[in-house]
Amino acid sequence: MAKTAKPKKKFRKISKKKSKQLSHHVPMGEEPYALREGEVAAELPAQFDAALYYIGRIRTPWQRRGECPKNARESDAVCTVELDPRWAAGLSGLETVSHVVLLYWMDQARRDLVLQKPRHYNERRGTFALRSPARPNPVALSVARLIGIDGNTLAVVGLDCLDNTPLIDIKPYFASTDSVPDARVGWHKGQKD
Amino acid sequence: MAKTAKPKKKFRKISKKKSKQLSHHVPMGEEPYALREGEVAAELPAQFDAALYYIGRIRTPWQRRGECPKNARESDAVCTVELDPRWAAGLSGLETVSHVVLLYWMDQARRDLVLQKPRHYNERRGTFALRSPARPNPVALSVARLIGIDGNTLAVVGLDCLDNTPLIDIKPYFASTDSVPDARVGWHKGQKD
Repeated sequence: MAKTAKPKKKFRKISKKKSKQLSHHVPMGEEPYALREGEVAAELPAQFDAALYYIGRIRTPWQRRGECPKNARESDAVCTVELDPRWAAGLSGLETVSHVVLLYWMDQARRDLVLQKPRHYNERRGTFALRSPARPNPVALSVARLIGIDGNTLAVVGLDCLDNTPLIDIKPYFASTDSVPDARVGWHKGQKD
Repeated sequence: MAKTAKPKKKFRKISKKKSKQLSHHVPMGEEPYALREGEVAAELPAQFDAALYYIGRIRTPWQRRGECPKNARESDAVCTVELDPRWAAGLSGLETVSHVVLLYWMDQARRDLVLQKPRHYNERRGTFALRSPARPNPVALSVARLIGIDGNTLAVVGLDCLDNTPLIDIKPYFASTDSVPDARVGWHKGQKD
């Protein structure tokens, strides 16, 4: 095989078989995630490039997708983030922050959609213009208010995900770089949230 | 093996060997990422739980860590996000947004640190209280201003990462849920950025 000039391709090492196991889509007793009219799927790459550890679980009051708030700010429910004790020391200093960024893994979403039509919108849009869980890498991001930390458990407000969602990362939220109050999403004007 | 009540553990399927290959840490001709005094590392889990596709590359003017701005708002450099053509249709509608959230993979960072002491701070803090690239899942998050889209390439302002950083996701930034102008990071008061 000819060498290419592209660096950092070292991680294409998960076999096609493992790749298929990992990308297998597992619906949870609700309607399957079939393509809706007009939706378009891409062919997934043959292999993965990097891998994640689940570092904990997010516990919320919502057991089914239909119960989840449509928007994280819609709910005042106090949710908990249960960090694997292995990582507990990593929370040191986090008690001084007012808000955290949580990254979590939407493990039931299909990963091949490029154009999609979420049920509550009329128009079809590109995956990267949406916050839909269906995306090549279903990493969701929520900004949550930190209520308190007890051992390896955080109490937070501002989540909308299913109970038991796998946690990927916790970050301190810096208003200086993360807050853009006047940001606009043109297509969303006049839409209901 | 006894069944447990915990659902969603289906993805612990990458072998220990693959796991080692994937977590292997590759410094790039700069100083190695050794533990500094007082830093603490956890034992990494034996296996990964989920896997990522690189969906593109971020092109910036910075070839070495020392050249990167310390803070994304420090720089007005226009950077480009080169999305793999496979996903290009997913950009439809994104041209109407003013800001995007970019998730990218800090593929050179070590993943086992729980307490760390970044060079520009005096105190040791937990990984989850810091935005350091060294974390169990080195997914970095930046909010960037979208300048324009040309085919599968985005022009953006507000990044601080190395050239050729692997891209994981692009999301529209919603001020309604993502912006918290009065958020505080207590430990950071009085620190230089």
